[in-house]
Amino acid sequence: MNTFGRFFRVTIFGESHGEALGTVVDGVPAGLALGVDDFAADLARRRGGGGAGTTPRREDDVPEIISGLYNGRTTGAPLTIMFRNTNTRSGDYANLTTHPRPSHADLVASRKFHGHNDPRGGGHFSGRVTLGLVAAGVVAKKMLFSDTDPLENGGSAQKNIVFSSSIVQIGGCSDKNRFDEVIADAMRDGDSVGGVIECRATGVPTGLGEPFFDSAESLAAHLLFSIPAVKGVEFGGGFGSARLRGSQNNDPIVDAQGSTASNNDGGINGGITNGNDIVVRVAVKPTASIARPQQTYNFKEQHIAPLTIVGPA
Amino acid sequence: MNTFGRFFRVTIFGESHGEALGTVVDGVPAGLALGVDDFAADLARRRGGGGAGTTPRREDDVPEIISGLYNGRTTGAPLTIMFRNTNTRSGDYANLTTHPRPSHADLVASRKFHGHNDPRGGGHFSGRVTLGLVAAGVVAKKMLFSDTDPLENGGSAQKNIVFSSSIVQIGGCSDKNRFDEVIADAMRDGDSVGGVIECRATGVPTGLGEPFFDSAESLAAHLLFSIPAVKGVEFGGGFGSARLRGSQNNDPIVDAQGSTASNNDGGINGGITNGNDIVVRVAVKPTASIARPQQTYNFKEQHIAPLTIVGPA
Amino acid sequence: MNTFGRFFRVTIFGESHGEALGTVVDGVPAGLALGVDDFAADLARRRGGGGAGTTPRREDDVPEIISGLYNGRTTGAPLTIMFRNTNTRSGDYANLTTHPRPSHADLVASRKFHGHNDPRGGGHFSGRVTLGLVAAGVVAKKMLFSDTDPLENGGSAQKNIVFSSSIVQIGGCSDKNRFDEVIADAMRDGDSVGGVIECRATGVPTGLGEPFFDSAESLAAHLLFSIPAVKGVEFGGGFGSARLRGSQNNDPIVDAQGSTASNNDGGINGGITNGNDIVVRVAVKPTASIARPQQTYNFKEQHIAPLTIVGPA
Amino acid sequence: MNTFGRFFRVTIFGESHGEALGTVVDGVPAGLALGVDDFAADLARRRGGGGAGTTPRREDDVPEIISGLYNGRTTGAPLTIMFRNTNTRSGDYANLTTHPRPSHADLVASRKFHGHNDPRGGGHFSGRVTLGLVAAGVVAKKMLFSDTDPLENGGSAQKNIVFSSSIVQIGGCSDKNRFDEVIADAMRDGDSVGGVIECRATGVPTGLGEPFFDSAESLAAHLLFSIPAVKGVEFGGGFGSARLRGSQNNDPIVDAQGSTASNNDGGINGGITNGNDIVVRVAVKPTASIARPQQTYNFKEQHIAPLTIVGPA
Repeated sequence: MNTFGRFFRVTIFGESHGEALGTVVDGVPAGLALGVDDFAADLARRRGGGGAGTTPRREDDVPEIISGLYNGRTTGAPLTIMFRNTNTRSGDYANLTTHPRPSHADLVASRKFHGHNDPRGGGHFSGRVTLGLVAAGVVAKKMLFSDTDPLENGGSAQKNIVFSSSIVQIGGCSDKNRFDEVIADAMRDGDSVGGVIECRATGVPTGLGEPFFDSAESLAAHLLFSIPAVKGVEFGGGFGSARLRGSQNNDPIVDAQGSTASNNDGGINGGITNGNDIVVRVAVKPTASIARPQQTYNFKEQHIAPLTIVGPA
Repeated sequence: MNTFGRFFRVTIFGESHGEALGTVVDGVPAGLALGVDDFAADLARRRGGGGAGTTPRREDDVPEIISGLYNGRTTGAPLTIMFRNTNTRSGDYANLTTHPRPSHADLVASRKFHGHNDPRGGGHFSGRVTLGLVAAGVVAKKMLFSDTDPLENGGSAQKNIVFSSSIVQIGGCSDKNRFDEVIADAMRDGDSVGGVIECRATGVPTGLGEPFFDSAESLAAHLLFSIPAVKGVEFGGGFGSARLRGSQNNDPIVDAQGSTASNNDGGINGGITNGNDIVVRVAVKPTASIARPQQTYNFKEQHIAPLTIVGPA
Repeated sequence: MNTFGRFFRVTIFGESHGEALGTVVDGVPAGLALGVDDFAADLARRRGGGGAGTTPRREDDVPEIISGLYNGRTTGAPLTIMFRNTNTRSGDYANLTTHPRPSHADLVASRKFHGHNDPRGGGHFSGRVTLGLVAAGVVAKKMLFSDTDPLENGGSAQKNIVFSSSIVQIGGCSDKNRFDEVIADAMRDGDSVGGVIECRATGVPTGLGEPFFDSAESLAAHLLFSIPAVKGVEFGGGFGSARLRGSQNNDPIVDAQGSTASNNDGGINGGITNGNDIVVRVAVKPTASIARPQQTYNFKEQHIAPLTIVGPA
Repeated sequence: MNTFGRFFRVTIFGESHGEALGTVVDGVPAGLALGVDDFAADLARRRGGGGAGTTPRREDDVPEIISGLYNGRTTGAPLTIMFRNTNTRSGDYANLTTHPRPSHADLVASRKFHGHNDPRGGGHFSGRVTLGLVAAGVVAKKMLFSDTDPLENGGSAQKNIVFSSSIVQIGGCSDKNRFDEVIADAMRDGDSVGGVIECRATGVPTGLGEPFFDSAESLAAHLLFSIPAVKGVEFGGGFGSARLRGSQNNDPIVDAQGSTASNNDGGINGGITNGNDIVVRVAVKPTASIARPQQTYNFKEQHIAPLTIVGPA
């Protein structure tokens, strides 16, 4: 289903080449100042800013706030944020129902929905649907950092939380100076590259998350794995910790605040935040849709067939 | 919270050293043959069978089916499965509130619950709480493989699904012949080791999972990360795929069934199962509770202090 | 929150005088034929068709299907149905923040949302928000009556279910011939009337609903009481059954199909449908917003004050 | 399903004649003093205290607190409260599968669960399952009235909330002095009576509940209708308000606190509490299981048959 969250509840909707896509965000406290400009920076980061290697599709991605806002402030009612699709060349995708792209959702979507899925641009499986996630994230950050509703958040905005995320590996290369080069090489070959993103949240209070099914790791991983290209998630030492002994991996407690000498647990013990930085790394597989010739099955003529994708994907 | 699932809904309860722990499983179809013996094999696997390196605590772990069963068959009402705690030496843990174990949940539990958490054996954070998860898993497998309720499961049990799981790495060693040796070495030092488990499900139908928030990966990762020691989860190529190019990572489709020449996607595209084997690897950090002397903070006397854990943990 | 449902999940959004309102409907099977025309009849019934006594506001209420539809059929992705607000005269409502209408949500909305709620036309509390509920109901009926997706609904549309609803009492009068007269009398006085609606579903299969928290009565009552003006719900004999003895109220079973000689249980036993007609009656209080002078509190000047509402409300 | 609630989450389990029944309550703050004695008064009220007309079955109903409690205080982990069934004479119910009791859940349970339901004493449909609801209610009241966890409830216990409930009508009689007589008359005839319960909560803060699907009325009605014998629920004026005009039914606001001259809305506007008393009335149908001879269908021999129930039901 397309709704997630108990207190802060996000519903996403829309397709890559439909009329519009977006999100309904419920559980937002009233009185939060919010405007279209608040979304600009994160939407630009999602779009990729024109660097080499990002999707060539260009749209303005202007959010329309359809409901939940009055006089520039949230009302407490559901916030609907919508993005019109403008640059939709449907013709590019007509071929995909007979020649599904390898490692893309084309084939499973067609089977799950008995051929009724919207095939244009991946339909509801498109990375473009993450526009709704980014918009919901902007609202979430506003809630964390604002002080407008003293009754709802105890009077103290979480001014000291800092989120940062960076790409730590692209196509097997961990030298950030060489990232552009690695991407340019792949593009020259009509190919794509995967990578690893590291996210870090500093200043998170101790005690967030619940034991077991609402563990901080469970909730974060649930959301991260909802993005189709994500194939791995690890916290703190992650897969590296699995190679260590307890005496190497344990984080010694060094003061009454519970500070630790290392952070192999990535800020989470037993599903509960421990006051250290939350550190999570996300493995993104290389974009399935590549310009380089590859092989797929021709479901119309029933034989293995070459596939060359032309144009934006 | 301690409840998970929309159709098949699992609630877990209990503490390591309380009276009992277990699970309430809702959404089980009526008419399923079920008995205490059905749980024996999986409970034995959880307990560790006496091999080197597993927890020294020994209990019979006899399930009591408290509700939802009549004349040896499920009734459609919630199934409550309970395990008495018998071998509980509370004295072992009295020290832990002042000297929290590094990388254990002792400290966060105390802070989150303002000192009211049950500290004995980790309380509700204990690995022993996974008894309820194992019991729920036994019921889930019964549902998949039984043919007793033709109206509920469409008349065809999923007889062809095969689950297997194995340890593929322990303490950095991937040679299964040397696993016992690696563990014995660590134990000799009073230390623990982490490892990686690979789970594989063969014969899973195409089309399970939903786009985005109920993706097959999201739901599996949510459950896996609910286990406190799990710090990483990856599907198919996982973090390895992030090092590849698309032309290397894509799984070419080779026949009308949608079979592929490789399985880097681990059986899931766009959150939907594609008919290939589901492959998931789980990174388990080394057990935090080690016999070897380590360092923690003495919260009573307010200074860094050595910690040596004696006896079962 | 504004989302309801486990399998068929409805999210509503929007305000009376905002840009638009509507619904996101998730869990709709793929392949269902759907078009704007399908909504016309039920939207007209909601609007009131021009009879005496209904809200004087007139809008076209044209649904826009924003997502989840492709080539005239549902895709399996969330269906977003939106209604633009066109006839919004905000000036009519400016007075309501200082002079809240008695028995309306004006005052509680202002207090709950610390004055940030959208006051225009009741904002998110407006009866106009039920447009989303009606639209979701149209989709639900399409699902019940269509045969387009044999894999999803077992190949048999519920062609024999018939829903009917009628007003059985208005302003204390149960003689349908006099309903127009009762309404006209009240309108002449600038007043409003309440009433009782009876809904009946014939042909509902036996066995729907679950014991306790997902009882058929619980789910229906939950939805009915979400409409602000609904103050009572009863099934079958309802409050009348509470006056009877068991020997009078029990429905004797008369054949192997489980047919009964009476239907005091309104088609539901123990929360489960029994094959009889589902009968539910809903008490709707008189519209709070009346043209007749009444008394409220002037929160600006801090005294009891007369209130006369002019124009549409 | 048998779980309800977002913050305070109740799961119920068990059957009338199984080993035990009870509840798992999640979301309880840590540090709440709780003991077996806390349950005595409400359990006695449920049992009926020996007055005429209540169920003749007598059990001690001793709660066992299985988990979530340590040193007499809640731990923040799920609280499991269990009641053993001791006085179970299964023989009394053997007849019910062939001769289902009219207006009881016997027949629908058998059909829904394909004959696998536990028929003894109504199984999971028994009124005895409400033991879990009463126990959960005791915990809820403890949470409201306690001041032990200042961080969780803002430091101010809701000391001023008063709950009261009373029977306002039995078998059509509203004169409380005659209730015993009405019941005795019915019992003499081997018959049962229905009735109406009025619940009142005084001192409830303004602003609880959410618009639409989490309206205060929706949530309360959902829970009330989960009890099998409840056939009607109304708030404030309820069905009586439906007979009035707006000018008669509206509650005039008379002061800056929002106090009103009347309380026809039963303390709720637009789904939100308004500070007035919450007033809800519940219609309970007469107990279906009566000693007087009645008629049912004999499903074994396939003909209409007399039914006389002997002994406790």
